[in-house]
Amino acid sequence: MRPIVLATDYGPTGAYVGQLKSAIYSIAPEAKVIDLVHELPAMNPRASAYVLASLLEHIPEQSVVVGVVDPGVGSDRAPVVLEGDGYTFTGPDNGLFSIVSRKLSEIGLFEILLSKEPISKTFHGRDIFAPVAAQIVSGSRPDLKPVPVTVLDGTEWPDSLNEVIHIDHFGNGLTGILFHSSSINQVLRVNGQGIRYAEAFYCVHKGEGFWYCNSNNLVEIAVNGGSAAEKFQLSIGDKIILN
Amino acid sequence: MRPIVLATDYGPTGAYVGQLKSAIYSIAPEAKVIDLVHELPAMNPRASAYVLASLLEHIPEQSVVVGVVDPGVGSDRAPVVLEGDGYTFTGPDNGLFSIVSRKLSEIGLFEILLSKEPISKTFHGRDIFAPVAAQIVSGSRPDLKPVPVTVLDGTEWPDSLNEVIHIDHFGNGLTGILFHSSSINQVLRVNGQGIRYAEAFYCVHKGEGFWYCNSNNLVEIAVNGGSAAEKFQLSIGDKIILN
Amino acid sequence: MRPIVLATDYGPTGAYVGQLKSAIYSIAPEAKVIDLVHELPAMNPRASAYVLASLLEHIPEQSVVVGVVDPGVGSDRAPVVLEGDGYTFTGPDNGLFSIVSRKLSEIGLFEILLSKEPISKTFHGRDIFAPVAAQIVSGSRPDLKPVPVTVLDGTEWPDSLNEVIHIDHFGNGLTGILFHSSSINQVLRVNGQGIRYAEAFYCVHKGEGFWYCNSNNLVEIAVNGGSAAEKFQLSIGDKIILN
Repeated sequence: MRPIVLATDYGPTGAYVGQLKSAIYSIAPEAKVIDLVHELPAMNPRASAYVLASLLEHIPEQSVVVGVVDPGVGSDRAPVVLEGDGYTFTGPDNGLFSIVSRKLSEIGLFEILLSKEPISKTFHGRDIFAPVAAQIVSGSRPDLKPVPVTVLDGTEWPDSLNEVIHIDHFGNGLTGILFHSSSINQVLRVNGQGIRYAEAFYCVHKGEGFWYCNSNNLVEIAVNGGSAAEKFQLSIGDKIILN
Repeated sequence: MRPIVLATDYGPTGAYVGQLKSAIYSIAPEAKVIDLVHELPAMNPRASAYVLASLLEHIPEQSVVVGVVDPGVGSDRAPVVLEGDGYTFTGPDNGLFSIVSRKLSEIGLFEILLSKEPISKTFHGRDIFAPVAAQIVSGSRPDLKPVPVTVLDGTEWPDSLNEVIHIDHFGNGLTGILFHSSSINQVLRVNGQGIRYAEAFYCVHKGEGFWYCNSNNLVEIAVNGGSAAEKFQLSIGDKIILN
Repeated sequence: MRPIVLATDYGPTGAYVGQLKSAIYSIAPEAKVIDLVHELPAMNPRASAYVLASLLEHIPEQSVVVGVVDPGVGSDRAPVVLEGDGYTFTGPDNGLFSIVSRKLSEIGLFEILLSKEPISKTFHGRDIFAPVAAQIVSGSRPDLKPVPVTVLDGTEWPDSLNEVIHIDHFGNGLTGILFHSSSINQVLRVNGQGIRYAEAFYCVHKGEGFWYCNSNNLVEIAVNGGSAAEKFQLSIGDKIILN
């Protein structure tokens, strides 16, 4: 049975993730569910799209990914299924899948046709996307309508995004900049401060800031033994210049 | 095998949840464990009782629910098992199960008779409730004494509670008010501010506050693209008026 | 199949834990994975060593424990496997396993010989330790070199540490002091304040502070119905005197 991978902005604490898992269990009790990330940038499909794409390489093959960052839940944004390279993604068509879709080949896009069951106005993760994933891994195909891939939202967003897209548990500031588009001689500028490259934490003094290629090949801002978010007052959306 | 569902105020971060799962694994290694919620209002069985009851509809059938919000751990509050409608709940008798019990039919209540093993004074979740759940799903009945359902704590609490009972990851303020007891023409008043109804986030402008029927049929206070807890200075226990 | 137990400082929120699980799944899809704790004191192997050791008694027998608190990731600190009493631990040799190793008998220590695959400079949890654990539970032995146990880092640290080592979700302050080395007549002094012993929360008035033997046999500072971290301004590393 294919694994189900969860990637949301629900946070780890409340009952949102628990209700996703309960919905999956009720349809596919044998399904293996992996919590990939529940701290995608909250209510921010654009920043989340870059975080999700950076994780693709480490998502198990054949996974069915439930991706939910959905500030427009209940509006007319479409619920979709995206397929490519053996992966399936299901979630809202609001750009969340736009960057990951560029890394997939032979992709197909489908709109989820909603049945007439009562569906909440504000929790489509539980009421649509988790059940669709559970149906897929169970071998029962949900009701899907093929649509042209070109309609996927977020197609105008760049491949490499010069912004802070995530602050992690340690206070590291993740950017959307592809490391291979940078040069280690460049100085990273953010909020009026200049930061130099280093290979890893141990390469700089305690308390010193640096930028580096993180383990998912994005440029990341860090401080050895400290919080880059505090030291450089980082927030999601901060503009980055490398020069 | 019946699933085990965890609902606690332990937070997701420390080793409390991990020790619950380890205790379950040691007795029932094959058991499926679902983290429903670990952010029940901390040390607050009354508010937690309303959150737990609101989730009942989405707990898988036949679940054995370990419910722990237990500020009186180690005192003479009884450890109990509550059964009804195919569900089993185990946890402290401090009101936590009072609201959910009203939604169940053909209920039975049992006091857990403690064996003589060493049991900690402050972590009955690990030492009593998780093992009891693991025994139940394994088919070995723990030592239980039937007691009258009327002794369950919290019977004087109302069905619909006009208070903020939870702040979620996005800053939404959940109340204990049953939506069907409200009217969408009413203005919600909290901390001297008046808030109007809307159906969902996309129905109001960015930054605007509203109240709505959440996905578990409780009245909830929210802000489109922002934090209601910040905007309206919400805390658990704040009184709500709808008029 | 032996269970895999995760004990890290990754926090529950980001994608670090999710990538550990994905790495394990890709090698050992059937493996049972238990999140024991992801809030070990961040970037602090010394304090984490005491927290981890206090949990040993409640880790399921035969577990393979992935322990990662690794501020020196990418430097020359060795990646190791520690075996004893049926348990296996894998993680960095930076002291994290020093206290737990004293509780194990017939221990063996091994250095992990790295293959030539690309391995990130900053995420050895995903790229080395989780895969090694998955290999072990799958029955395929990773490439290990026996080394003398005496080289394990942290051997000079005391068995009982008179410091705050962790602040939990409720604001309780865990210390590294073994309860059996204390006396309940002693007054605990921290940050210029004196705190008396009580057996459990319900034994003191609401809002009152006390110290007690926590459920893992360490001295812990708490407040009934409140946060000891706030009341006594506790931070990890604060010195404790009992007299």
